[in-house]
Amino acid sequence: MPSETILIIGGGPAGLEAARGVAELGYSTVVVEARERLGGTPISANYAALTHGMRAAAEVMGEMAAAVTGHPLVDVRLNTKVTGCAGALGDFAVMLSTGDTVRAGALIVATGFDHFDPGRASQQYGYYQYDDVITLQDAEAMLKRKEFVKPSSKMPPERVCFIQCVGSRDRQIGNEYCSKVCCGVASKQAIEIRQLLPDCRVFIFYIDMRMYGYWENEIYWPAQEKYKVQYIRGVISEIVMKGDRLMIRGEDTTMNRPMEVPMDVVILSNGMEPSKGTKEIAGTLGLAQNKYGFIATPPDSLDTVATSVPGIFVAGAASGPKDLDDTVGMAGAAAMKAAGAVRRASLAGKA
Amino acid sequence: MPSETILIIGGGPAGLEAARGVAELGYSTVVVEARERLGGTPISANYAALTHGMRAAAEVMGEMAAAVTGHPLVDVRLNTKVTGCAGALGDFAVMLSTGDTVRAGALIVATGFDHFDPGRASQQYGYYQYDDVITLQDAEAMLKRKEFVKPSSKMPPERVCFIQCVGSRDRQIGNEYCSKVCCGVASKQAIEIRQLLPDCRVFIFYIDMRMYGYWENEIYWPAQEKYKVQYIRGVISEIVMKGDRLMIRGEDTTMNRPMEVPMDVVILSNGMEPSKGTKEIAGTLGLAQNKYGFIATPPDSLDTVATSVPGIFVAGAASGPKDLDDTVGMAGAAAMKAAGAVRRASLAGKA
Repeated sequence: MPSETILIIGGGPAGLEAARGVAELGYSTVVVEARERLGGTPISANYAALTHGMRAAAEVMGEMAAAVTGHPLVDVRLNTKVTGCAGALGDFAVMLSTGDTVRAGALIVATGFDHFDPGRASQQYGYYQYDDVITLQDAEAMLKRKEFVKPSSKMPPERVCFIQCVGSRDRQIGNEYCSKVCCGVASKQAIEIRQLLPDCRVFIFYIDMRMYGYWENEIYWPAQEKYKVQYIRGVISEIVMKGDRLMIRGEDTTMNRPMEVPMDVVILSNGMEPSKGTKEIAGTLGLAQNKYGFIATPPDSLDTVATSVPGIFVAGAASGPKDLDDTVGMAGAAAMKAAGAVRRASLAGKA
Repeated sequence: MPSETILIIGGGPAGLEAARGVAELGYSTVVVEARERLGGTPISANYAALTHGMRAAAEVMGEMAAAVTGHPLVDVRLNTKVTGCAGALGDFAVMLSTGDTVRAGALIVATGFDHFDPGRASQQYGYYQYDDVITLQDAEAMLKRKEFVKPSSKMPPERVCFIQCVGSRDRQIGNEYCSKVCCGVASKQAIEIRQLLPDCRVFIFYIDMRMYGYWENEIYWPAQEKYKVQYIRGVISEIVMKGDRLMIRGEDTTMNRPMEVPMDVVILSNGMEPSKGTKEIAGTLGLAQNKYGFIATPPDSLDTVATSVPGIFVAGAASGPKDLDDTVGMAGAAAMKAAGAVRRASLAGKA
């Protein structure tokens, strides 16, 4: 007999929104989360404020977790992984690391992304070499504490820059795609640094500023006009130390001239890669992956949440770079499609 | 007694996807479409291939329409508008232009966008003056017929360019937002022109190329490498006639020099504005609009499909610039939330 339960893998923004949706439709759900708490990357990576609304990550994710915690139709399993899966749409048997087996009519994969590791050999920015070369996540953790210092001296910096497209739009490392959110996140952090340190100069070195839709008027215009963030179209080729300061070398492609400018802190805007959990679950469930390792959705289709296995859906950055608006949209769509699929399987089973 | 019917306003990509979703969940829906057929802007504006999958618009929209046409839970009303609305979540009475009144528990607004009219006084590109200055939609209609000619001579052009951000990112005309899809659509059309006319040179003049996520590797890289589309970062200030050719004047901001180059056809990449239907329905239903006239969603929230009225949801470009992936994600989420809302209202009514 078919099961109408929907199993959701991952308790971040996509998984929590999908769980709320499934429960609102009156279907029971089991949420399996590998970490010891809900909230996903915004919580585990200590995000400060979220784009594009600039609300505190802890508050937003707290609300999303509260909507499902204790809900009679939602069974949350923390510190738990999926280890195996048998069956098909309408009647999957999902093995968990706890030894339990859960019967489910459909699954939603919401295992998210990892931040690109800028210490990879092909990267020339000295991330492991220099204390004052940090990532967006390092900066985010400081901003969450409402402080922003030069790591080597613990003093407020006078000059900070962001280098965009680290690990994205880069054929040499195999990531030709754009990670979609880094322009917005860097601009948001630039505003936050200027709010904390009004005397600090903040620069963003970019190829294209990708502030689509309302990010343009809600973040990009204020960053330039109200917060005087300096956007410089340029390519940074090298970072070296000169005294106790970093010196960045490259080319200003608007002014068409070489540049060598001192910085106290360099923030690498590192992009998205498939998370370890995403790659593992693709193997466990037998889901097709694209060439980058993200979960593949049907090519040339407007079905953005289907996978290669009927009855298994995907939501959020497990399928590729997504912003939070994309993620909750996909999660709602996946909840709808999973509920529709188990309903159909159940009706067929009764017929 | 509460109604569990969901009324959907608009039969384009957002409305059709929402209707399919609502029906899959077992709820009945009435789809109200002002035009004489389903398919929305991709059909009424004669789109050729859709981004980013490059499938024929007529085929994709035909499939979406077929999924709801004749479905026992979907009642499609063509040539029909909403003229009034009373009641509240769980029990709306919606008046139609046909004289009928439909009872519905929730509504989904999917009234889409209009293309920016580049003939507006503040625009200096001579759209109404020169036959060979056209819009993305004019080009799309030609590409759908598998031809691309210089309108004034009906001959194949030798030099074609796109001018990006026409009606977007422009404070003078009041549209500070980015329209999100024009970079991708121009790049797609540039590829299609090069496929039809291998000897024609194609240029794209841009501020930033916003090819986020997989648009980067699926469209932008091939446009440059396989199809030799020439991307020039520049600002075009004026278009004049010189003999039987257009002459575009501006500045190449990468080479940092003025330019004056001849073109046979200039395509204005005009952006999105709220559709007439979107502005009308906001008034009829009493929905808050943002400063641009799009339907407002709650600020700083991850509820991307809620409006200012409980029980009325929004999907697609009615709430601002959206691509097709965004649109179907939002439509799925709106279907889920509308179904959840009528279910809750219905349970409360029975209690």
